[in-house]
Order: sequence, then structure tokens, then C-alpha cells
Amino acid sequence: MKAKARKLGRGVALVGAGMSKFGSFPEKTGRDLFFEAFRELLASVDKGFDPREIEAIYLGNYSSDLFEGQGHIAPIIADWVGLAPRPATRIEDACASSGVALRQGALAIASGLYDVVLVGGVEKMTSLPTERVTDVLATGGDALFEIPAGFTFPGFYAAMATAYIHKYGAPLEALMRVGIKNHKHGALNEKAQFNLTIRQIMENKLAKAKAQGRPLPSWAGELDFLRDEAANPVIAWPLRLFDCSPISDGAAALLLVAEERAKDFTDKPVYLIGSGQASDGALHSRPELASIRAAKLAAQEAYAMAGVGPKDIRLAEVHDCFTIAELIATEDLGFFPPGEGWKAAMEGLTSLHSPRPINTSGGLKAKGHPVGASGAAQAVELWQQLRGQAGPRQVPGEPALGLTHNVGGTGQTCVVHIFRRG
Amino acid sequence: MKAKARKLGRGVALVGAGMSKFGSFPEKTGRDLFFEAFRELLASVDKGFDPREIEAIYLGNYSSDLFEGQGHIAPIIADWVGLAPRPATRIEDACASSGVALRQGALAIASGLYDVVLVGGVEKMTSLPTERVTDVLATGGDALFEIPAGFTFPGFYAAMATAYIHKYGAPLEALMRVGIKNHKHGALNEKAQFNLTIRQIMENKLAKAKAQGRPLPSWAGELDFLRDEAANPVIAWPLRLFDCSPISDGAAALLLVAEERAKDFTDKPVYLIGSGQASDGALHSRPELASIRAAKLAAQEAYAMAGVGPKDIRLAEVHDCFTIAELIATEDLGFFPPGEGWKAAMEGLTSLHSPRPINTSGGLKAKGHPVGASGAAQAVELWQQLRGQAGPRQVPGEPALGLTHNVGGTGQTCVVHIFRRG
Repeated sequence: MKAKARKLGRGVALVGAGMSKFGSFPEKTGRDLFFEAFRELLASVDKGFDPREIEAIYLGNYSSDLFEGQGHIAPIIADWVGLAPRPATRIEDACASSGVALRQGALAIASGLYDVVLVGGVEKMTSLPTERVTDVLATGGDALFEIPAGFTFPGFYAAMATAYIHKYGAPLEALMRVGIKNHKHGALNEKAQFNLTIRQIMENKLAKAKAQGRPLPSWAGELDFLRDEAANPVIAWPLRLFDCSPISDGAAALLLVAEERAKDFTDKPVYLIGSGQASDGALHSRPELASIRAAKLAAQEAYAMAGVGPKDIRLAEVHDCFTIAELIATEDLGFFPPGEGWKAAMEGLTSLHSPRPINTSGGLKAKGHPVGASGAAQAVELWQQLRGQAGPRQVPGEPALGLTHNVGGTGQTCVVHIFRRG
Repeated sequence: MKAKARKLGRGVALVGAGMSKFGSFPEKTGRDLFFEAFRELLASVDKGFDPREIEAIYLGNYSSDLFEGQGHIAPIIADWVGLAPRPATRIEDACASSGVALRQGALAIASGLYDVVLVGGVEKMTSLPTERVTDVLATGGDALFEIPAGFTFPGFYAAMATAYIHKYGAPLEALMRVGIKNHKHGALNEKAQFNLTIRQIMENKLAKAKAQGRPLPSWAGELDFLRDEAANPVIAWPLRLFDCSPISDGAAALLLVAEERAKDFTDKPVYLIGSGQASDGALHSRPELASIRAAKLAAQEAYAMAGVGPKDIRLAEVHDCFTIAELIATEDLGFFPPGEGWKAAMEGLTSLHSPRPINTSGGLKAKGHPVGASGAAQAVELWQQLRGQAGPRQVPGEPALGLTHNVGGTGQTCVVHIFRRG
């Protein structure tokens, strides 16, 4: 596939964004979660606006069918926030659903049909017991050739981790470093499901053991804690509990407008300057497990459209559904050469105060991963960072360019977006 | 909502189309069905083309998650027909999924990003037992406020039928006339699940009774047959078995290209000149049950974009998931005034040799209704009719303009498209 520089017929800007808190909320439906995100979006539009200006809604959702027994969720959600009779379309590409919804919203504006589009993502996952959630997520693999063989998602990514470690000699510590970093970032994000560092989690466990008069474990530090099978059990070797993103409820929403309308909404818009999307066969059919072809192709398309390269990107939200996925992502996106991503993670080259921080939001690992909402939530983080509104986790020096990388399944879908400060 | 005439930034043409046979195929998966449709599409492109020219795929599917245990079906299908790594996006709006996929495909071309897009629809429904299919379809209602009250789709449309009959005094015969007509059309369509007239079905039953030495029922004709509770039992009063579309497996595929590329593919393209989509709240929340607001709004948008009106449309495929739905559709689309659709059906004003035939394909009623494929299959029928290739069911006189009307759920989504012969 040649990386011809595709252009949209019309520029697109992000002029508002919001998200619900991510976590486990037994009392909330998907509708409640989306309403929270939408309400925050409304408040985020600097100059205010009438929601009736919204002309269409694109909603990313993986499987409200299986999670909530609710199909046809796009018009249900549109009506819930008062947007009926506007056209409401659900986009599904597994965990990349709302990243792809963002792309469709942008294309719809570029088509000339709409000027103002709402993009959202929502997933309510905790309504099912954990083992059933694992089964639902497994439908994102190949139901003919993978699921009958016993694969679930920790297994898929464990296979990728094993391939990566075998090929590049990465130590397990590199995976742990990703988790430690993302929890550090998540501790600075009040929306995060885990806004605690791994050190804090460890200290809480020690305090609890002490209070209960149990013998104190002798963890020398975070790495020691993460290497302890009792504290951090293996889920699918080499992935342990703290290598896996959690089961989450949450929603996110983005307001996209035609570039020429941006200043009607805010003096500080964020421009969407690059978009790329690609697909691939299921994992079992791929010759290479230590990288994701769809991610490389989506990144190529987005970079070409934006006219920038990996070196120009100041910060990125990447799809760390498992810690291994972040290492692979930083290579697929060209931030580090193949086989070097793990070294960068070990050296702290992806932390908040590095030249190119990865997952300042806490990532899927710490912020949480309500699968259909994750792609849109990545853009919420860039909206805040590129406008200097990210509070204690603000990337210093007025970052100008940010990137989002959202993967569906094992990489059968990847969608990449590049945003520029206005 | 004002009906401003929205325009696409770029024209779009249909240059190829195909569909699988619709029916019950225990030995086929959704992938097999889509492959059949895609193969027919390839053969339908007059000047031939290299499938690698396809730049993206938009796939309508209601719930492969629930029907086949396969989520993330868009890239699975794309890979199955050799299109990976092209971007593959699933569009879901219940039974309007592939009608909306058609719209997204058109917008994607109009955006300038793509010149050649594959739009598809697929549903494999017969893998579940009938009562379970009914439950899956019910998730297209409102899972909080309708399904717990016991509603399933025959019940929803029975409520609409009751409201319509009450408001306009329509006789039950009008519903039966829709079924008789659509089966007549379906008998002329070899792809139809029921390519038998209701008279043929009745005669087959008589022949079977005779062969088995059972007493012969004394049906005076088709209407008498349809009024017989034994032959045509009530499903949800006033809807009987022959008022309901069947449970079906099937797929359909459309090749869309930028208008300026059309002649590279065929000298007889079909232009997509109008598109409209609207949403609405669930049925329980609507003040009016005898019409579908989303359909009226979608039609207004499509007519305004195309610059034509109902009188200009020579033939239409409308969403007759139940016979009542066709009566309401012909009014919502402006073909007949409110309350007059049933009279038109009684007078034969919608049959193949009328001035404006409805559902020449046999409609969802006789052709079958694999829900995620139905919208795209409607466009397949227009592709054949507007090119004079519909064989024994060809509308005479070189029809120039045709319309498709595809409803999701009880009308929480409607999407309307208008096509013009090239």
C-alpha cells in the first residue's frame, strides 16, 4: 500500500471535549455515563453554544448488545442527551470504535454535509461478571479460528509479548516500567480509574497488612512488588495483573466543527491535521507478532496527511491495553526503532518530563479502558494538553503537536490521529 | 429541523453491486455469505477492475456479536475477501445498518479521502433458534423502558398497526394486499428467500393435504387463505404470520466511486443524488405511532439534496419488515397522503405494473430480511432496475429515478437514498 498523502477536502477542528470519570459504577448505565461526558463537553466550549447546532452524532461502542442487552445504541444515546432527530450512527471497530468514530466524524465534515458533529464513545462493562467480560472481549478475536482454540485477550497479547521478548531480548522489567509510569501519570488524573501510583498501591497493601496484624511482605520497592506472584499474579505469561488494563465503565465526547467555524466556538481550537486507519487479518494469520502492521500503515497515512513525522510529535496517547502494547506502539509509530521501545521505557524516555511523554492521562492501564470510549478519551487528553489545561500532568512548554493511536482487537484495526494546537 | 438543501462536496456513483441468495443456510457463515455478494459485485462491474483499487470498506451489520459470537466483524470480512489492510469500519443502526453504511461510504468519497469504496451488509441469523432471534432483535428496542415490558418486534409493529387502523379505518385486507403483492414480486426474484406467490404457497399446501389424504381446506383464494387462523396464525394482533418478514441469512455489496471515476468502471453508472438520515427516540416516547418521523425527515433531506420530489420517483424499495411498515412508508415518503397508503395498496397502485411500483425485489417480506444486509440489498435492486437488468420483474420504460427507504428498529433510525440512471 503506497503512502500517498491523502487530504481531506475541508479542515476540521476540535472545539470541545469531555469525559466521565472512568471506573466501576454499578449504579450507572451507558446512557448516564455518556450524559456525564456530554455535560462536561458543553461546559468546555469556551464561547458556549446551543447543542441544537449539532448536526450529527457518531458514537463508538464495542458491544452494548452483549454488555447491556441494548442494540441500536446510537439513537438511544442521541435521544438521551436531547439530540433526536439528528442522524445518529454507531461505529464499531472493537477497542478502536471511538477512534474510528472520530475519523468518520471528520470525514462527514470534510464531505461538506455537516459543519458541527458530535463524536462520542461509551462502554458499560462492569454489568457482567469478570469471566463473562473476558468472553465478550474475546469476540474481538476470530470466532472461527482463534476463540475455539481457547484464546482470550490476555492470551493474544501474551503471544505478542513472548514474540517481542524472543526477538529483541527485552527483560520483563521493561513491561513493569510501562505500568509504573502510567500509574504515575494516572495518579495525576482525577478521571482515572486508578489514580494511584503503584508505590501507593503497594503502601496501601502494607498498611492494610499492618492494621490486620498480618506479617508484612518485604517488598524493597515497586519492581519487587510487581515481581511478587502473590501481589501481581500471572494472568497469561509473561503478562501479570499489573500488565493488564482494567474492566471499566466510561464515556467520552468530542465536538468537531469545520475549520472555518472554529473561532465561533473558541479562540483556542485544536486542529485535526492527520488521520490514518488500516485493517489486518486476525493475529493467527500474521507473519509478525512483534509489531502491528495496521498501526504502521495508519501512522504513515496520518503523518503524510499532516505533513509531519514522528520527531515532530510532542506527546502521544497510545493504546496500552497491555503494557507490551505500549512498547510495540512506540515502535510502530516511529518514535523508536524496532526493538528499541523497551530500552526507551527502561530509560524513562516516555515519562511526563521526557521530550516525548507517552500516555500522560495514565493510558488505558491506569485511566481505565471502557473499550468503546478509549479512542475518544485519548483525544480528550490531547484537547487538554494542547490547550495547557492538563493541570498537574501538563506537559511543559506549550506542546504544539500530539498524536493518538487506538487499536481494535489484536490490531485488526488501528486508527491514528494527529492534532495541532491552534 | 429545517430542511436546508445539504449538498455533498463531490458526486458519487454506484458502479457495481451484488448480493448472495437470501434464505436459511445452516452450512454458511456470515463470511461465506459476504463472499458470495462480493463475487457477484466483481462480475457486475462492466469494464472490470482490480479489487485492490478499493480504498476502504464500510460494513453494515446488526449483531454478529449476538448471532455468531463474532465482534469486530468489519476487518474479519475485509480480510476474508482479500482487502486487508484497507480500513474496514462496521456501521450499526439496527436494521438500517447497511443503508447507513451506504451513506457513510458516500460521505467518505465526498470528503475527498477516497475515490473507490466498498459498502456491504451482512447478517447470519439462523444460527440461533427462532425465539432467541426474537430476543436478539428486541435489543433494537429500548432495553430500559420497552424490553422489560415484554415488547418484541412483532409487538412494536402491531402497536403501530393498531394505531394506523384506529386512526384511518384501514381494513386488515390492506395489510394482506401488501403481502400478496410482495410475494408476487419475490416470485420473480431468484435471490428471494420466498420466490413463491402466496397463491403458490396455498396450492402447495392443498397438494400436500391431498397427497397425505387429509381433508382439503376450502380456501376460496389468497385472501381467504390469509384469513384462516390455521394457515396464517396471529403473531401479534393484528399482524399474522404472512405480515412478518422472515428470519434470514444474507449479504449484499455495493461499489461506490467518485463521480468523475464512474466511466472507468462502466458506461452505465447509477448516480447517488440524494441521501438523508434521521434519528428518533424509542417507540414508547413518541406522540405518533401511525407514521415515522425519522423517515419523513430523512426523505425531506434526500429529496432536497436530489432536487426532486416524491412525484419524480419511478420506483422504490421500502422497509417492509412488517406489512404495516410498507403502508406507513409510502405515506412518510410522500407517495400518498397520510391515511391514503392503505387505499393505494388495495387499488394495486404499488404493484409492478403501476406508475410507482414498491418493492419490486419482493421486499423484506418475500426477498428476506438479513437485517444488516437489507439496506444494501435495496440498492442492489435499484442498480438492476435502473440499468434495465431486472429480468422478469423489470419496471418498464427505462426508469430514471429510484428510492430506497431503510428503517432501524421501530424508526429510531431511518435513511433514504435517491438514485438516478446515468
